[in-house]
Amino acid sequence: MTAVRYDVLGLGNAIVDVITRADDAFLDAHGMRKGGMALIDEARAAQIYDAMGPAVEISGGSAANTIVGAAGFGARTAFVGKIKDDQLGAAFAHDIRAAGVEFTAPPATDGPSTGRCYVLVTPDGERTMNTYLGAAQDLHPGDIDAGTVAGASITYLEGYLWDPAHAKEAFVKAAAIAHEAKRMVALTLSDAFCVDRWRHEFLHLVRSGTVDLLFANANELQSLYQTSDFDTALTALRADARFAVVTRSEKGCVVVDGAQTIAVPAFPVARVVDTTGAGDLFAAGFLFGLARGAAYDKAARLGALAAAEVISHIGARPEASLETLARENGLLA
Amino acid sequence: MTAVRYDVLGLGNAIVDVITRADDAFLDAHGMRKGGMALIDEARAAQIYDAMGPAVEISGGSAANTIVGAAGFGARTAFVGKIKDDQLGAAFAHDIRAAGVEFTAPPATDGPSTGRCYVLVTPDGERTMNTYLGAAQDLHPGDIDAGTVAGASITYLEGYLWDPAHAKEAFVKAAAIAHEAKRMVALTLSDAFCVDRWRHEFLHLVRSGTVDLLFANANELQSLYQTSDFDTALTALRADARFAVVTRSEKGCVVVDGAQTIAVPAFPVARVVDTTGAGDLFAAGFLFGLARGAAYDKAARLGALAAAEVISHIGARPEASLETLARENGLLA
Repeated sequence: MTAVRYDVLGLGNAIVDVITRADDAFLDAHGMRKGGMALIDEARAAQIYDAMGPAVEISGGSAANTIVGAAGFGARTAFVGKIKDDQLGAAFAHDIRAAGVEFTAPPATDGPSTGRCYVLVTPDGERTMNTYLGAAQDLHPGDIDAGTVAGASITYLEGYLWDPAHAKEAFVKAAAIAHEAKRMVALTLSDAFCVDRWRHEFLHLVRSGTVDLLFANANELQSLYQTSDFDTALTALRADARFAVVTRSEKGCVVVDGAQTIAVPAFPVARVVDTTGAGDLFAAGFLFGLARGAAYDKAARLGALAAAEVISHIGARPEASLETLARENGLLA
Repeated sequence: MTAVRYDVLGLGNAIVDVITRADDAFLDAHGMRKGGMALIDEARAAQIYDAMGPAVEISGGSAANTIVGAAGFGARTAFVGKIKDDQLGAAFAHDIRAAGVEFTAPPATDGPSTGRCYVLVTPDGERTMNTYLGAAQDLHPGDIDAGTVAGASITYLEGYLWDPAHAKEAFVKAAAIAHEAKRMVALTLSDAFCVDRWRHEFLHLVRSGTVDLLFANANELQSLYQTSDFDTALTALRADARFAVVTRSEKGCVVVDGAQTIAVPAFPVARVVDTTGAGDLFAAGFLFGLARGAAYDKAARLGALAAAEVISHIGARPEASLETLARENGLLA
């Protein structure tokens, strides 16, 4: 059996966030669905960028944010995702490595440029995302190294991987290797509209046991089961998933494991500046706790702590040391 | 006589800031002078970037920050600086245009990449800068359009322009055109180490009247006159410069115009997060006030307000609307 080298391995779209403030009128004028993630092509990317205000560039990507967060708690981590050998790709690679994450995939030398997400943050702190996948489009099964996956306690996958053409094959390959090595496979549903695009495939992943642990927020879960009622969705989830965590913003989260259901409150936040990355960082703390053998309520509190940190500033990567925060809050010895 | 089309035209190095947090030990380990700006070559840039933590990219450049700040107050502005046609150059161009500044210089299609400044922010909010000039190195007199300069009430130049090979020729050309058109020429001394490199040339610019208005902070002024005593430096300045503004961090600023000396206090700041851009934004407010015919004390308060905004967050570009802030503080009708 392969020795454990990583607590968590992430697989996802490698994306640099291009973040600006915008008002609701801007979203309306550009036909954007507030709070959602829309996939855009290069022409639309140029159009949005031309129209939007001065921006800051901060590395992002859903699973990448999660892995950086887990590393921030002290987890041993690795990430697999596709960048190009351009300036944004260099920034992505630098930032994830500087966070302590192993990231060794060679950048593409031709094809589209490194993926970008134009993030519009409204005065209420809500973020509306427009993603140009770029080089992330080209993630394929050949990018999955069996030894790396077999050496990770948990392999964490983002639902957004269903959008690029071959990334889902990489996803399925990684899940098979992980299970062969008796490791855990986790999936986040990513986004309610992503669930809408891939509902049947996501349900199949959960019901077939390809995924052992499912992360979803209330919107995504209700989209999965096409219901406006949270409890109806939760009941359906209990029947399908062995193990799942559902986040509910300021209402905290619910951990479901077989017959067990545990509710854990959110951490208070003085002022919500930018909700980008809230779900990603919740998963970071939960996965870190899980990999280190913490009880569910403690893992969930680690997740809530990381989510609270990331929504208190611009960008989806933690600015403070999560390890220090966890110690200060009595969640780490 | 050319009609006034701009309140302020800026000429400076076009730079993207790459900002991270670092402790004093990191500065020591890498031989950096805290609070200073060091010019670095490509190899040193790579070495620093490899060693530093996860970063954010935000457009910068000293004079560019000032011009963006002036535009934020509602000034009509333009900027001249050299970028390359790469991703960082595109970000620089987008951000300055999105701030309402006219920026029409074509990017270089070959040669070094767009300039970068690696900014290390220590826990006390102080910033230590390492600048790879890149494409900014190639600013030359041909980039100066006579009509643009003649149409600007004030042409604002940064001392850092003395570092690239031909930028000083562009500077001198712009100053001559401005004076021919009876416009004002302003200079910031930029940095105490920059003053150390170019002391005699800067003194000549001031004494010869090539520069009508000089901006300096206390360190730069004391470096200019090679004295550890502020009052000695101020007395020397009064003899050399017709019009000057000296900023003194939390002690506010001093405006010197002939026999007149006016001291204006700083704006209180709840928490200093990152001092990058403090001097640049002070100049923004002062120049805006001056161009609109405000009295010196009011212009200085506009400067202090903009400086207070920019040191309360990461990055050297304002996050809030300076126009709104000025109205809220009774500095704009």
